[in-house]
Amino acid sequence: MKPFNPALLALALATTLPASHAQQQPSPTVPGYAYGQRTLAKAPYTMADLKALQASLLFTEEDVKALRQSKAILADQTDAVLDVWYGFVASTPELVYFFSNAKTGKPDGAYLEAVRKRFALWILDTADANYDQRWLDWQYEIGLRHNRVKKNKTDDAPSVAQINFRYIPALTIPVTTTLKPFLAKKGASAADVEKMHAAWVKSVLMQSILWSQPYIKDGEF
Amino acid sequence: MKPFNPALLALALATTLPASHAQQQPSPTVPGYAYGQRTLAKAPYTMADLKALQASLLFTEEDVKALRQSKAILADQTDAVLDVWYGFVASTPELVYFFSNAKTGKPDGAYLEAVRKRFALWILDTADANYDQRWLDWQYEIGLRHNRVKKNKTDDAPSVAQINFRYIPALTIPVTTTLKPFLAKKGASAADVEKMHAAWVKSVLMQSILWSQPYIKDGEF
Repeated sequence: MKPFNPALLALALATTLPASHAQQQPSPTVPGYAYGQRTLAKAPYTMADLKALQASLLFTEEDVKALRQSKAILADQTDAVLDVWYGFVASTPELVYFFSNAKTGKPDGAYLEAVRKRFALWILDTADANYDQRWLDWQYEIGLRHNRVKKNKTDDAPSVAQINFRYIPALTIPVTTTLKPFLAKKGASAADVEKMHAAWVKSVLMQSILWSQPYIKDGEF
Repeated sequence: MKPFNPALLALALATTLPASHAQQQPSPTVPGYAYGQRTLAKAPYTMADLKALQASLLFTEEDVKALRQSKAILADQTDAVLDVWYGFVASTPELVYFFSNAKTGKPDGAYLEAVRKRFALWILDTADANYDQRWLDWQYEIGLRHNRVKKNKTDDAPSVAQINFRYIPALTIPVTTTLKPFLAKKGASAADVEKMHAAWVKSVLMQSILWSQPYIKDGEF
């Protein structure tokens, strides 16, 4: 339970991760990014399931609005956000393990970089998600890519076989906690920053629950 | 995605739930409450697993302190907190279903009441948890009681066979969102209320992850 230390994170980042791109603009042509592609399998959960999950999460139209408000704020900050998130992963051995080369045990730079490009698009997709069937199918695909069913396949990565379930919902906290300062950097009121942060927590938790489906025993999701 | 409506909740509560006890004091003799009992199975996750999960959740000694601060604040409010939580469940058909009689489909008052007594103790246990092996074993038992392995057995309830996985992490949001006003009712500073709320979010999410273990495919937790 050591405290979160940004200096240590930066050091760990510098020593284990590839150099970040300077203000790279996300692009839908990023390899492996497949949101909306008809080749994706249909999600095993329905739009009705999603609505029930949203109700249980207190996720409302207010949250949708707050997330949309965050898009313009985050649009030119995704690279800086990813520096912090990757720094956190790099400084947490239990997490960087999932990006390691299964043979050498060392972080795989090419794999980290390939995921990072899609991660930038995910930030903006989370901000203006429309929660339709295509969105559901993409959540399912993302879940499969965390699970042993599809881990490593998108990038032909030589990494470990799966990301263990327990870290997926857990990452809701570092992702949204470290995002909050970026939400405050463009002049939004403190109240709006709180609303955007709360909406992000709900959305990331909701997505992590959908991503967990491939890990769940039959009939228990 | 309808907004959270307290008036509607109160109405739903009044029509579907048994009358609440006036300021009932939680007691360790509550039926089915087994924290610390040697009869509990050993959890399938270790203390090292817990420490890694805490690191991934940014859960630190600051959070432990903030949770402990919340105990005195919540001690005489657990019944009022439970009125709100049960009101939310009662007003959300997808959730009250899990307390329904499997034959009639109607909420089972005796089952709701039996769970409620343990829920009051859980609030205080969350506030001063010590995260040792006994605590881990109790989390495992709570998870089994949500899963089809042990659902209904503690109270010999005639209810549905399981609580579906997806609602367990999701409930982190309503539980902690509705708790926040109670954290502010005893004069703590706004900054302290924020810290306590953030610590509660981390703790409830962490517990819900541990409770999910019985739902996860072998080797994927």
